[in-house]
Amino acid sequence: MTSQIFPSDVQQSLDLVGIFVFALSGGLLAVRKNMDIFGICVLAEVTALGGGVMRDLVIGATPVAAFSNLGYFVTPLLAGLVVFFLHPEVERINRAVQTLDALGLGLFCVTGTAKAHDYGLGAVAAVALGMVTATGGGVMRDVLAGELPSLLRWDREIYAVPALVGAALVAVLTALDSLTAATGTAAALTAFILRMLALKYGWRAPRAWHRNGSRTSEE
Amino acid sequence: MTSQIFPSDVQQSLDLVGIFVFALSGGLLAVRKNMDIFGICVLAEVTALGGGVMRDLVIGATPVAAFSNLGYFVTPLLAGLVVFFLHPEVERINRAVQTLDALGLGLFCVTGTAKAHDYGLGAVAAVALGMVTATGGGVMRDVLAGELPSLLRWDREIYAVPALVGAALVAVLTALDSLTAATGTAAALTAFILRMLALKYGWRAPRAWHRNGSRTSEE
Amino acid sequence: MTSQIFPSDVQQSLDLVGIFVFALSGGLLAVRKNMDIFGICVLAEVTALGGGVMRDLVIGATPVAAFSNLGYFVTPLLAGLVVFFLHPEVERINRAVQTLDALGLGLFCVTGTAKAHDYGLGAVAAVALGMVTATGGGVMRDVLAGELPSLLRWDREIYAVPALVGAALVAVLTALDSLTAATGTAAALTAFILRMLALKYGWRAPRAWHRNGSRTSEE
Repeated sequence: MTSQIFPSDVQQSLDLVGIFVFALSGGLLAVRKNMDIFGICVLAEVTALGGGVMRDLVIGATPVAAFSNLGYFVTPLLAGLVVFFLHPEVERINRAVQTLDALGLGLFCVTGTAKAHDYGLGAVAAVALGMVTATGGGVMRDVLAGELPSLLRWDREIYAVPALVGAALVAVLTALDSLTAATGTAAALTAFILRMLALKYGWRAPRAWHRNGSRTSEE
Repeated sequence: MTSQIFPSDVQQSLDLVGIFVFALSGGLLAVRKNMDIFGICVLAEVTALGGGVMRDLVIGATPVAAFSNLGYFVTPLLAGLVVFFLHPEVERINRAVQTLDALGLGLFCVTGTAKAHDYGLGAVAAVALGMVTATGGGVMRDVLAGELPSLLRWDREIYAVPALVGAALVAVLTALDSLTAATGTAAALTAFILRMLALKYGWRAPRAWHRNGSRTSEE
Repeated sequence: MTSQIFPSDVQQSLDLVGIFVFALSGGLLAVRKNMDIFGICVLAEVTALGGGVMRDLVIGATPVAAFSNLGYFVTPLLAGLVVFFLHPEVERINRAVQTLDALGLGLFCVTGTAKAHDYGLGAVAAVALGMVTATGGGVMRDVLAGELPSLLRWDREIYAVPALVGAALVAVLTALDSLTAATGTAAALTAFILRMLALKYGWRAPRAWHRNGSRTSEE
């Protein structure tokens, strides 16, 4: 599914962990929206694989990785079943889920950027696709569930900025020809730590300047 | 648009029937949402062709079939016009439309799975794409109309399970090297009959276990 | 991003103008929905590039142009920043923005149709993709912002019909082998003028016939 920064078995394991936790967030939203077992599994699949599918479509890597690798497809189903049977327990360890989600964010922004670069895209486009890989599934999850994408809401802790930093680090490392397992891990950890700090300290991004409250709706 | 299970003129005719009835459901939703003639035609197109387009993009079959075959594109426009002029009559024969929709579901899950297999996807991925072919257009219809996708709602009769069964039968038949017009038809009819039974007896899928009503919103 | 009707530097300049004004409309909606700087930039990107990305995916032109050309990607970010700092001023020149948007509509329906034709699509499919190029980004903008797509609303001035006329003119010109910079410009201007007239005179498309108010919801 992604460029070989890491040895392929390490890569595969990391991918599956990231996919699993992204799928949990999809499944939990489905439960909150009162969906049935099938809705839970669909939202789990979409959340976990949506970003990578969008990236692969844009770069023309078809058939897309999410449908070529059985593990990538089955893992979200397992997450869906876990949520189906154990959702109160999963909700209770919400902090652990958020931490794993931040790990997934860090991992996918790095591997997504590297894969886009491998397919010949320039640095800026590769960074953009790294962010799409890391955040696209969550946007699709929210749209399908009828929610304003949390990525776009001002009242959520920043999610895209950590991904942007991780992706930009990979672009710089690639330009310097020094993207290795060690430096790639450092980039992923940087994104991870930024996201955790954002959650801890409630970092938010600014809204438009000179706001005139009467012209805007508080959604 | 699809793998040649059937002689190509039979296939084409079946495809057009399925596309027409899917388009009717899109057009009717557009009328209920008070859209104009153009909105009716757009929703008819999206509902009828969306699933096949998603499948073709994922497997890399471009230009996608829906845009390579004039009949596939024009048929939803005809359905849109029928709805525009005759929507009360079409609503009145809702049961007939649901029956035809179930036929479309059966047909597309079978042909979608077969086409995905032809493009080299494994059995599980092909089944998933068969389901995407059969249900993706309806999801896009609901998202565009600002509705929670009926595929994901617990209070709707099961729609995905019949498609899953039909697609899985095709995967098994393919593995046994015995997918023919006869067996493919049998798989499509199985999905069709399951859907009709679900409608007749109100079959629904279970929601998550140990539900705590106070934590969930009834949408 | 588009077929070479015009000399490539002229084409590029026109594309960037169209992308910039489409991005402004995305950014302004993001401000109205109270999104932060990042949401503004995402909606600007999606609105400006979404239609072209959809077209490129359907015809199999990957990596898609929006990610191969740095200018196409950076321009919406600039528009996002303009909106972030100056949105009251941009709102105030709404009429100018609508005029530029109509120019973008005319341009993209023409270049989108021409590019689809270059990739071997038939006349009807090329016209459809021309309309997708011109209107797809706006639909994605509205879906992400949780709004019913204005393209589909009966209470908005017609937007798709001018695009349809411009795209159809290109298809006719192509069939007659007389698509040049001059005739292409004429087609784009026709679409532009139709859109401006629709805005000036409040042209709307008809809703379904024999409407029965009690069966429909006014959304």
